[in-house]
Amino acid sequence: LKGRVVVLHAFQMLCPGCVSHGTPQAERLHRMFDAKDVAVIGLHTVFEHHAAMTPVALEAFIHEYRLTFPIAVDRPGDPGPIPVTMQAYQMQGTPTAVIIGRDGRIAYQGFGAEDDMALGARIAAALATRPSP
Amino acid sequence: LKGRVVVLHAFQMLCPGCVSHGTPQAERLHRMFDAKDVAVIGLHTVFEHHAAMTPVALEAFIHEYRLTFPIAVDRPGDPGPIPVTMQAYQMQGTPTAVIIGRDGRIAYQGFGAEDDMALGARIAAALATRPSP
Amino acid sequence: LKGRVVVLHAFQMLCPGCVSHGTPQAERLHRMFDAKDVAVIGLHTVFEHHAAMTPVALEAFIHEYRLTFPIAVDRPGDPGPIPVTMQAYQMQGTPTAVIIGRDGRIAYQGFGAEDDMALGARIAAALATRPSP
Amino acid sequence: LKGRVVVLHAFQMLCPGCVSHGTPQAERLHRMFDAKDVAVIGLHTVFEHHAAMTPVALEAFIHEYRLTFPIAVDRPGDPGPIPVTMQAYQMQGTPTAVIIGRDGRIAYQGFGAEDDMALGARIAAALATRPSP
Repeated sequence: LKGRVVVLHAFQMLCPGCVSHGTPQAERLHRMFDAKDVAVIGLHTVFEHHAAMTPVALEAFIHEYRLTFPIAVDRPGDPGPIPVTMQAYQMQGTPTAVIIGRDGRIAYQGFGAEDDMALGARIAAALATRPSP
Repeated sequence: LKGRVVVLHAFQMLCPGCVSHGTPQAERLHRMFDAKDVAVIGLHTVFEHHAAMTPVALEAFIHEYRLTFPIAVDRPGDPGPIPVTMQAYQMQGTPTAVIIGRDGRIAYQGFGAEDDMALGARIAAALATRPSP
Repeated sequence: LKGRVVVLHAFQMLCPGCVSHGTPQAERLHRMFDAKDVAVIGLHTVFEHHAAMTPVALEAFIHEYRLTFPIAVDRPGDPGPIPVTMQAYQMQGTPTAVIIGRDGRIAYQGFGAEDDMALGARIAAALATRPSP
Repeated sequence: LKGRVVVLHAFQMLCPGCVSHGTPQAERLHRMFDAKDVAVIGLHTVFEHHAAMTPVALEAFIHEYRLTFPIAVDRPGDPGPIPVTMQAYQMQGTPTAVIIGRDGRIAYQGFGAEDDMALGARIAAALATRPSP
């Protein structure tokens, strides 16, 4: 992912705000931007209803919602319910969008619904920022 | 349910057309009509991804989507994947809406997205039809 | 119109709530119900910006928005700005929906956005009510 | 406007695609971006129904739709119906969006509905391009 802008979409398959807005938005981002410039990555950060949101269920979800961007499963927390990456980024819930710049640093992190126009602008701003040599 | 109009909403928790349209519509029907006149009943008719759409997962789904109308689980088919009631009504998929008149007969059955205005009209027409004595 | 249910849609062509919701809804009603049962009638009730909402402008509006239900122009008020029918019905603004039953009496009158499902139900209820002989 | 990115929104007050999508989008752009960076300018390019879309009617429209970005009226064509700026830019109809870069050159011109996310990205790309000294 070196030199690319990364958009991380943290979600849960049973989170209404993700299913109705955030996850389809991530799919559109994936289709709109060139993968050489922007990498959209999903992260299934299950922090509740663990028995329901299993890897098998996630696979069915990805299939039914025709998601084509790569999706990873966050490592379960030990001992708490919050998974590891979600803790590391101190996310407040799902959906969370994280934009990581070409220099590998977090350019933006937001919890909740993101406006299409604003998100497009933020990603383009990150694309325009080149790391100093 | 005798003498009442029944609206049956057959759905699957991982069916995008149900989650984005049919199921919230059933919830609004349940809140808009008087329960003495119209009974809205959900039916979880799982015919695919059985390992994902378990009763535990359905319970989490109901909780997350704040559904307040009663929801039954259709009996698994034996031996096929199509559950029993879904077979009995010869449903083509999910979501399916069934309107049952005051006389206990099917007044309407439709597969796919239902227009709000048309559905409201169909239910009111069923309400206006009293069984002959 | 005798014996039919009449839906009166009072609007102004420069009223945002009419253009985005009420007027297209009236057009859908007109197309969904049988004209033998339900007559949808528009009424241009201009009570502000009279110099802008002229008959010529209304004609252009009807053409651009492809409206096919009949639309009348409310008679200007004398001396005030409120037109005659709007005054007679004591409408509070636009859009206003009026449902007139088969017996010629007002069954419902509402100001503002009408929910599709609720409006469909109200019209069907009016259809189901036959005047006593 | 020197050094700023300019977004030109050409519209007609009786064009449904403008009223339902393009014009409110221009208003959101105007509110979302800093005026020091991006100037949103409306242009009323009347090429039909001239008797309906008069300056008086436009003023009522601007008032009713609470538009806060500056709006100019395109000079009537002579002799044809197409106004002067619309001709100069060879616009195909309304709405048309034109993005003018910091260097004063047209960076993008599009006819019809613009996707929020794509438009946000295009404007940010124009912002990121500085004229060579």
